[in-house]
Amino acid sequence: MKHLFYDDYSEGAHPTILEALSKTNLEQQIGYGEDEYTKNAIVGIQKALGVDSAVHLVSAGTQANFICLASMLKSYEAVIAASSAHINVHEAGAVEATGHKIIVVESEDGKLKPEDVEGVVAAHPDEHMVVPKVVFISQATELGSLYTKAEITQLAETAHKHGLYLYMDGARLGVAVTSQSGDLQLSDIPNLGVDMFYIGGTKNGALCGEAIVIPNSQLQDHFRWYLKQYGALLAKGRLLGVQFEALFGDSQLWIELGKKTNEQATRLTDGLKKLKVQFMQEPAANQLFIILPDTIIEKLKANYGFHIWSKQSESESVIRLVTSWATEPQNVNELLTDLANLLKG
Amino acid sequence: MKHLFYDDYSEGAHPTILEALSKTNLEQQIGYGEDEYTKNAIVGIQKALGVDSAVHLVSAGTQANFICLASMLKSYEAVIAASSAHINVHEAGAVEATGHKIIVVESEDGKLKPEDVEGVVAAHPDEHMVVPKVVFISQATELGSLYTKAEITQLAETAHKHGLYLYMDGARLGVAVTSQSGDLQLSDIPNLGVDMFYIGGTKNGALCGEAIVIPNSQLQDHFRWYLKQYGALLAKGRLLGVQFEALFGDSQLWIELGKKTNEQATRLTDGLKKLKVQFMQEPAANQLFIILPDTIIEKLKANYGFHIWSKQSESESVIRLVTSWATEPQNVNELLTDLANLLKG
Amino acid sequence: MKHLFYDDYSEGAHPTILEALSKTNLEQQIGYGEDEYTKNAIVGIQKALGVDSAVHLVSAGTQANFICLASMLKSYEAVIAASSAHINVHEAGAVEATGHKIIVVESEDGKLKPEDVEGVVAAHPDEHMVVPKVVFISQATELGSLYTKAEITQLAETAHKHGLYLYMDGARLGVAVTSQSGDLQLSDIPNLGVDMFYIGGTKNGALCGEAIVIPNSQLQDHFRWYLKQYGALLAKGRLLGVQFEALFGDSQLWIELGKKTNEQATRLTDGLKKLKVQFMQEPAANQLFIILPDTIIEKLKANYGFHIWSKQSESESVIRLVTSWATEPQNVNELLTDLANLLKG
Amino acid sequence: MKHLFYDDYSEGAHPTILEALSKTNLEQQIGYGEDEYTKNAIVGIQKALGVDSAVHLVSAGTQANFICLASMLKSYEAVIAASSAHINVHEAGAVEATGHKIIVVESEDGKLKPEDVEGVVAAHPDEHMVVPKVVFISQATELGSLYTKAEITQLAETAHKHGLYLYMDGARLGVAVTSQSGDLQLSDIPNLGVDMFYIGGTKNGALCGEAIVIPNSQLQDHFRWYLKQYGALLAKGRLLGVQFEALFGDSQLWIELGKKTNEQATRLTDGLKKLKVQFMQEPAANQLFIILPDTIIEKLKANYGFHIWSKQSESESVIRLVTSWATEPQNVNELLTDLANLLKG
Repeated sequence: MKHLFYDDYSEGAHPTILEALSKTNLEQQIGYGEDEYTKNAIVGIQKALGVDSAVHLVSAGTQANFICLASMLKSYEAVIAASSAHINVHEAGAVEATGHKIIVVESEDGKLKPEDVEGVVAAHPDEHMVVPKVVFISQATELGSLYTKAEITQLAETAHKHGLYLYMDGARLGVAVTSQSGDLQLSDIPNLGVDMFYIGGTKNGALCGEAIVIPNSQLQDHFRWYLKQYGALLAKGRLLGVQFEALFGDSQLWIELGKKTNEQATRLTDGLKKLKVQFMQEPAANQLFIILPDTIIEKLKANYGFHIWSKQSESESVIRLVTSWATEPQNVNELLTDLANLLKG
Repeated sequence: MKHLFYDDYSEGAHPTILEALSKTNLEQQIGYGEDEYTKNAIVGIQKALGVDSAVHLVSAGTQANFICLASMLKSYEAVIAASSAHINVHEAGAVEATGHKIIVVESEDGKLKPEDVEGVVAAHPDEHMVVPKVVFISQATELGSLYTKAEITQLAETAHKHGLYLYMDGARLGVAVTSQSGDLQLSDIPNLGVDMFYIGGTKNGALCGEAIVIPNSQLQDHFRWYLKQYGALLAKGRLLGVQFEALFGDSQLWIELGKKTNEQATRLTDGLKKLKVQFMQEPAANQLFIILPDTIIEKLKANYGFHIWSKQSESESVIRLVTSWATEPQNVNELLTDLANLLKG
Repeated sequence: MKHLFYDDYSEGAHPTILEALSKTNLEQQIGYGEDEYTKNAIVGIQKALGVDSAVHLVSAGTQANFICLASMLKSYEAVIAASSAHINVHEAGAVEATGHKIIVVESEDGKLKPEDVEGVVAAHPDEHMVVPKVVFISQATELGSLYTKAEITQLAETAHKHGLYLYMDGARLGVAVTSQSGDLQLSDIPNLGVDMFYIGGTKNGALCGEAIVIPNSQLQDHFRWYLKQYGALLAKGRLLGVQFEALFGDSQLWIELGKKTNEQATRLTDGLKKLKVQFMQEPAANQLFIILPDTIIEKLKANYGFHIWSKQSESESVIRLVTSWATEPQNVNELLTDLANLLKG
Repeated sequence: MKHLFYDDYSEGAHPTILEALSKTNLEQQIGYGEDEYTKNAIVGIQKALGVDSAVHLVSAGTQANFICLASMLKSYEAVIAASSAHINVHEAGAVEATGHKIIVVESEDGKLKPEDVEGVVAAHPDEHMVVPKVVFISQATELGSLYTKAEITQLAETAHKHGLYLYMDGARLGVAVTSQSGDLQLSDIPNLGVDMFYIGGTKNGALCGEAIVIPNSQLQDHFRWYLKQYGALLAKGRLLGVQFEALFGDSQLWIELGKKTNEQATRLTDGLKKLKVQFMQEPAANQLFIILPDTIIEKLKANYGFHIWSKQSESESVIRLVTSWATEPQNVNELLTDLANLLKG
């Protein structure tokens, strides 16, 4: 096996993070997220955002999603999501396990539109139905696409007009805000009306960790109780604090790693286009969905790891290639060379 | 502040663990606990147990508890626990949030007895009441006491006689199985009839992590679905795998750290007894509950961190002192000297 | 207002039922469904089914659905349903409130096909997703269509092949088994592999009440605990027992009322066809979905009650007309006459 | 068997109620509680209360309790109740099934005191614990005792001082407000600071039905969604409306039936005292707990139904005798005569 392009979590942490863990290791700290490193991490994130929103660190993305949604929803309230949304497909019913319905909207590109929200609201008029209360979006989406600033602004306006909240899953926010295909900056998010979101660490250089941010002050109350009840308060909260302090310190490591990931994604995209490989859709960040003959895929699997996404035709399939902060130029070059040879036959 | 005796999670990880994380950091691995390190960790744990029970790694103790209990209980079934049990007092209703009642039994020493189980079963005869289905115990308990092998055997027999499971919270299992006050070894646990338990990592040298063990093969089915649904499957499962591989490798680090923790606890106990300090109860592992005048406590707080547990009398309180694998002899000596001086007045 | 065709629950109970309630009123009985009338009702239902399946009486259809589903599902398991299913649209998230996902399949006619089940099972291979465990169907469906015996047999076979259960919502089972458009008899249901279902009383002559039937003996355990926990055990269980005894006694009242309802539905259908009114789909039982100009609908509303179902075109809508056991021939005649006049202009 | 003194739900409905059901039976009405009878019932209840609080009708007491509590509690919030509370013992974990912990306070007489509430609040200071949010009381209690106006006022003040709500289970409110041992009138309840409560119908003359009253206007929002989601909205809501219209119409039937029940309870109490029978506690309403030799109990069981409550000594037990609106003077006389003979030996 030469390289895995399965995902952006095949390696451990960026070395800077491991060093920070080592350096601070024996200092005694208060537990459960009240340590100095967590405090510093929160200040760093607030500085990067330009606002002093509440920030909470948790271990994982599914955990972040269901806790955030549970904190916003009464038992009869529901969340609207695209059919491809992580919460709908890949979280083993975590949201429903907290008692809430996901109202699914079909979406080709993984994005929700204001008219989707309008339609769902109009279709839920009375007590025989759930009340839609949160609009769930991912940036980048599960299909690799990006929302523009204008699109998020419109979604937020539509949501708020009907009394709904806008929530953003930012598992891949690092590549989203550093992609040349997008115009959304990290510091834009609270200003555009996103009520709650999380900043992904796991897929952007951390060993684990996601930072939940709550710009809407009405949603901040008793949030630590939700964390505790749903198993997200680590005794050694420093594990998350040290990592996010490293990511959001002066070095701006989190931004750097997003850029590095995108650079290799762009190089890979460019190389694939030169090979005339067809894309399921134009890539916007670090997830590339390409169409290849099944015979080629079979051979490529001998040396590279990647997910087979869907059947495209009788003899072709879509595969997903993902770059990460740890992807080196030679990994991309090697893949392109090998694929070129395979395509030549 | 000279030293914190708050708990056994004030420091980071044992250096061996950090080294293991660094050494393996850039190797690419499959995510979600299917990496090589996790596989090795499981083998190491199975070897230490002497049986090939199912093993799953999660991040935190509250998470381990509610997931394990939820996996064993139908909606109308309940868990029996001592009033001081962590699940009853300090988990913010996590078990109830999964839909289950905790049937509480008053207990002076934090331990359940077979007659407690018999009594609860007899008091729940029909469909107007929940069905008791799991007996929850902690080893060591939240009050620092230990179950003997004979006591666990009897509890297991009583539970099984009535169709209940026996579950053990092992957050502090490391000090429990290495304490000179106890006779229970790690490899005894599956043989005595414990149906599910977890081996605590966080409080015994890891940055985070608890290893759930399921000796009862009827309870192993689809366990990874529970992990995923409740947010416990880390994308970089290697974080847990590497740590438990280090703890349960040839060096037997996990056992060593338990011993080291107990050594300092014993030294502290002996020193306190020489100072004629009164104990709320005879310490069995690394949690010491001692009674001190409030005036002394106030002064001690200037240089040491510890929890004030309860009011003992008009002018005295119980405080809890906890040692860890990172407690050094000089930390204990210094505390004893300072306390001696304070007591002398 | 001349007559309401809103639904099949606009009136109270069939007079025979009220008489039975009066006649038995002052006899003392044990509570919570252990009375003599409930026992007789169960025997009557078992006789009508030809098998001695477990039977439990509850008050309402939503209650029956979520209790039955909760009793069959582990927390990570889900139910497959058509998009128009009552549990998906009109139960305010009751199933999700018990913690379970509904996997929705688009369906034109409100019916699920074996290939729908196959497709859902194939799409849920691992622990990142819920496990489909129950196939939910309604007979008659929410769109008025009926499953044939052959279709139910095939669905049951497909479900069982993959380890799933087949559940049938029988809120309108009375009209389903007495419709001339269908071939499914009440006594067929347990033999075809339906694992659990309920026989609707509320929409077929009772004041309230649905009879849950559990042909699959593996699903009968502790069922009364679910009833109690979810609020379905009435102290005066006799209220349900007396009614179902009347419906399933020697008179076969439940069958008679279904027939009567269908007779008026057929008369209404025939009359509407003579008026050249277009149907959204061919009616199979007592729900008629017809397309009318909005101007006509507006005038019809002055004297008749009915639901406006959906917009059909710029100037037309679909309305739903429902007959019940209490619909009299003159109610149908009057509506047909008035509509004829309106259509003539 | 001469007579059952098991409970106050061994008979059907008061004849006035059955007549009302018959008289209104064939009138067509809108479903789901929007019928004319329900509207009239609500007006009748509001008139009896002297305030226009929101009122909702449901079928059963367990259902009323868990829906009300779920509507008041966020996921991390809990309810305080006496150990003997119906929600703690006899609802099969219904409250926990909605995700909430019951914080239990031991109570000899089934009543909570302000200091109980203070103690629980003080013991739950941080995010490791649930937040107490509702104080649950029953009037009359499960042990037959009554709160005075002054006691309820103090409980409400204590609850509100700490931001908690006061909820009252009124399954037996009919006998409570008509007992000569109590001073609480129905119209007092909203004025004393009770935030939500229900008026029991099932145990005071109805076939089924409890009327939830919400004096605290902040708790009224979207209440019908909770009813629907938890299975409490009956399609034929008229069943509840007609009954409560009859109970709270001009005749004041509900008050009358409470009085009648208490009269027979008083007669029974007086008779038992003449026989020198010992009471577990002085009866305040229609539940009498008396101590009898086991040999007498055994013989009494041949002709009378009653619950054996608890073991009192080696040779004696406590039994519970309950009167209802349907208990006739001769039932009481006969029991007293037979018991007198048994006691004489």
